Amino acid sequence: MKMSRLYAPTLKEDPAEAELASHKLLLRAGMIRKGASGLYSYLPLAWRSILKIERIIREEMDAIGAQEMQVPILTDGELWRQSGRWGVYGPELMRLKDRHEREFALGPTHEESFTDLVRNELRSYKQLPVTLYQIQDKFRDELRPRFGLMRSREFIMKDGYSFSADEESMRQCYQEEKEAYARIAERCGVRALPVVADSGQIGGDSSVEFMALADAGEAELVYCDDCGFAADVEAATAKVHVTEGAEGELERVHTPGAGSIADVSALLGVEQSGTRKALALVDGEGNPVVCFVPGDHDMNDVKAEHAFGAYHLMTDEELEQYGLVKGFIGPVGLPQGIRVCADESLRESTWWLVGANEADYHFVHAKRGRDFQIANDAWVDVVTAKPGDLCPKCGRPLKGARGIEMGQVFQLGTKYSEAMGATFADVDGHEQPLQMGCYGIGVSRTVAAVVEQHHDDNGIIWPVSVAPYEVEVIPLSIGDDVVWPVAEQVADGLAKEGVEVVLDDRKERPGVKFNDADLMGFPYQVVCGKKAVKNGNVEVKDRATGERSELPISEVVATLAARVRSQRA
Amino acid sequence: MKMSRLYAPTLKEDPAEAELASHKLLLRAGMIRKGASGLYSYLPLAWRSILKIERIIREEMDAIGAQEMQVPILTDGELWRQSGRWGVYGPELMRLKDRHEREFALGPTHEESFTDLVRNELRSYKQLPVTLYQIQDKFRDELRPRFGLMRSREFIMKDGYSFSADEESMRQCYQEEKEAYARIAERCGVRALPVVADSGQIGGDSSVEFMALADAGEAELVYCDDCGFAADVEAATAKVHVTEGAEGELERVHTPGAGSIADVSALLGVEQSGTRKALALVDGEGNPVVCFVPGDHDMNDVKAEHAFGAYHLMTDEELEQYGLVKGFIGPVGLPQGIRVCADESLRESTWWLVGANEADYHFVHAKRGRDFQIANDAWVDVVTAKPGDLCPKCGRPLKGARGIEMGQVFQLGTKYSEAMGATFADVDGHEQPLQMGCYGIGVSRTVAAVVEQHHDDNGIIWPVSVAPYEVEVIPLSIGDDVVWPVAEQVADGLAKEGVEVVLDDRKERPGVKFNDADLMGFPYQVVCGKKAVKNGNVEVKDRATGERSELPISEVVATLAARVRSQRA
Repeated sequence: MKMSRLYAPTLKEDPAEAELASHKLLLRAGMIRKGASGLYSYLPLAWRSILKIERIIREEMDAIGAQEMQVPILTDGELWRQSGRWGVYGPELMRLKDRHEREFALGPTHEESFTDLVRNELRSYKQLPVTLYQIQDKFRDELRPRFGLMRSREFIMKDGYSFSADEESMRQCYQEEKEAYARIAERCGVRALPVVADSGQIGGDSSVEFMALADAGEAELVYCDDCGFAADVEAATAKVHVTEGAEGELERVHTPGAGSIADVSALLGVEQSGTRKALALVDGEGNPVVCFVPGDHDMNDVKAEHAFGAYHLMTDEELEQYGLVKGFIGPVGLPQGIRVCADESLRESTWWLVGANEADYHFVHAKRGRDFQIANDAWVDVVTAKPGDLCPKCGRPLKGARGIEMGQVFQLGTKYSEAMGATFADVDGHEQPLQMGCYGIGVSRTVAAVVEQHHDDNGIIWPVSVAPYEVEVIPLSIGDDVVWPVAEQVADGLAKEGVEVVLDDRKERPGVKFNDADLMGFPYQVVCGKKAVKNGNVEVKDRATGERSELPISEVVATLAARVRSQRA
Repeated sequence: MKMSRLYAPTLKEDPAEAELASHKLLLRAGMIRKGASGLYSYLPLAWRSILKIERIIREEMDAIGAQEMQVPILTDGELWRQSGRWGVYGPELMRLKDRHEREFALGPTHEESFTDLVRNELRSYKQLPVTLYQIQDKFRDELRPRFGLMRSREFIMKDGYSFSADEESMRQCYQEEKEAYARIAERCGVRALPVVADSGQIGGDSSVEFMALADAGEAELVYCDDCGFAADVEAATAKVHVTEGAEGELERVHTPGAGSIADVSALLGVEQSGTRKALALVDGEGNPVVCFVPGDHDMNDVKAEHAFGAYHLMTDEELEQYGLVKGFIGPVGLPQGIRVCADESLRESTWWLVGANEADYHFVHAKRGRDFQIANDAWVDVVTAKPGDLCPKCGRPLKGARGIEMGQVFQLGTKYSEAMGATFADVDGHEQPLQMGCYGIGVSRTVAAVVEQHHDDNGIIWPVSVAPYEVEVIPLSIGDDVVWPVAEQVADGLAKEGVEVVLDDRKERPGVKFNDADLMGFPYQVVCGKKAVKNGNVEVKDRATGERSELPISEVVATLAARVRSQRA
């Protein structure tokens, strides 16, 4: 492909609308363009990457026996009513009426369509399991579309659905998809963590989100480099590192104005993890509770709702009403009638540094069992995990990261099959609802994730596996009889070897070409300058490492073709 | 792929809803399923064909330098207003509002989107020409969706748009697309005629429809096997075969009750083409006209409007008013004040058999120039061509056929670029509107066209190039130690050679397997029966010809792989 013909209108300036690196760079490199809000065109370069990602997905899906097909984008409103989602889904579901006033939705996901498809065709256990998938435009009318391909209203997604005769088979389908998703991310050059979103009833996970690591991600994660554990901070059951207090007799110390963990820690020269934070709340049944967590951790709202129901933190009025002193609450000498709870992480801790239930005073050497009690049923899991906490699987320290949801695998069970009457005859001839799993991965979002993980200040750095082109040949002059023939010869030679090449045949200054080459970010650049060519050489630049090396013209095609081939996914 | 795992639920009976062969067979073979009216799912087998058709399209588009990309399906209503089509398009255009009450349409075609995309980016003649295309789901809310994939409301289409600096460049882009379309049809195994839909101002065509020949087609065509001419009967300017009347003195003959061409032809023993049909009409300016055409041809409405403006055929009252005798009108002795016209095809004909303007009487030997006159400006082109007429290009007899519109190429000129302000600076720095072409080809409709052209009473007969699978291996028993290992070995061997194979591993009777194999219609069947296998052979059946041949087990893989490879597009 000649650069002069390529439809890739680059921009010199960062577009004002773009915040994320992927959004900025894809716009600047002439790879995407915005139409209406949240609606993007994929220009030829981005589209080539998308086709490669789709091919990787197909190969991995085919390898686990999943079968590709396609249901309509227009989904019948009647199906959404059968599943019960027509009323539940909010304005994100784009709805329209046809000329006969029949209601349809533009599919954001297709559990209903696939369940409807198979419900009269998968009739016997002998036909099961079956996994079907499609790659298709999906629609979600986001309230605030943003971040380019990351959160758009029309996006490309692979969605798949498995149908099994029993839970064991469903779990196996799920497991195979989960492993395939990990391979897809890896082959696309995306570092993604399988984050357990929900735990199954009988151990093991029943839903995993694949989170691509990116500073720009919306989700906050902890993960273990050693054993592969990963979780959203809000869901993780990490082992919290707790500092034990000093032993001794209970001692009341003056801590004037030290009503925060930071203050008391600084004043007494104790690590924050050696203090205990008291959270006063009113639980879902209206009873007052004080819950203790390690001083350096926060209580997590979702976990706290699990523990306390629809709770709320006490207002100043409520604190006063229950006789609690804001900033100085502790387990010793608490007013009557207040339930005392503590986070699981404190179970092994005996010596606490706590508030004295008196303004400007704390207790040091408060000993559990001597000075205060935590009842057996008062241990709760409420803290938000954070980097440095210990992995619940292997005990090593967790790292922190932010992530972009790239895909999700989910054990649906019989939710849709029961609602929509999708049953089969089991080995005894009894009708049973199909056991389903669903599996989604964002294709256009993966492009964004790739760019988030692979860029520098100058532009994109495509991994070979999903690069729009693999090599760019850059002659520093055009139409002369020294450099130009060599550039053409190298480009033709690479193309003949099956390498995807762009030849920058534009009459532009070298600086413009170098900038565009770095911006578009194809993995290798072959620079043909007069001096090198006269010596029989060209220069090869590796976009990722920035390394440059001179190679003989006679060898560059074979060398580069071999290197590219070895890096394809 | 094992047949037992394949999601292809076959039907034993013809579905009542289906009229066309393609509709019936694709349903019966478990390749498509209907959701709501006019909305079809492509099951795994049909989807494999679609991916192959898409690949062929991509290869041909890439070969002419067109670049693939994608604009959103959701198109902004504002763009349709700019082009003027928001108000013009009827209820076929599916419209919806987003959560902010902004209007959108589901794209049936994307002239607006592409014009909008390039209007601020293609700024100089140096960037031109550019041809962009996409393969995407399209939407058209048909009043009566029918015929399965032939006329559905959501369908897959490749649509492309070229942008040029001048008309010559536009015509060249158009010509390249036209040639690519012919190759696409051929590679998909579809016999399609390029039918001139509209003639350009300076000679040559400005729009061509690619019509796949099929008895079930909605369009009626004439075409020439010799020179490749093809046209809709309504647009064709064929040379009509005209039978000259006998010479002699004008003679009034009694033809009681013979008020139709068929009657008078039978009564007088003259070919219909030897009679002259008189059409009495009132032209767009309100003047009475009688127009003569060869007795065996019909006047075409579209052509007649060209000749006579907004005309209508005379009512009985009008015939009486102008003194005309229904069924017996002729050019000799016509009442005063009626204009006489004749079809071009009669220019060379002197001796006519015509009505005598008197009930139950005709004239034979009516001689033009002696008994009546046709004025120099009274010759018009109004007849509908029909098989047997002569090719206007080469003069050989035309054949007739029915056709399905599979694609269309169109010179748009500046219609959209002017309406939407898409201009570029020409070589002199003047702003000019872009010269555009648009090019569409139906992908899902091509599947239907393939099946219409390739089937028999037993099922589909896929051409290798677009077959879901290339070979089916049919062991006549399963799990035994004679036939089954051979079947597996052949299937594995073919797969290793890159041949796409289905192994029918179901415990079904041979009859069931043979029926399904013919119904699904993969190009080759390898039948493994006990007797042949014991002799070291298997039987290969060519689905298209029905030919069967025994091949040694040791050779079948290499032989069949070579045959399949040679037939891929």
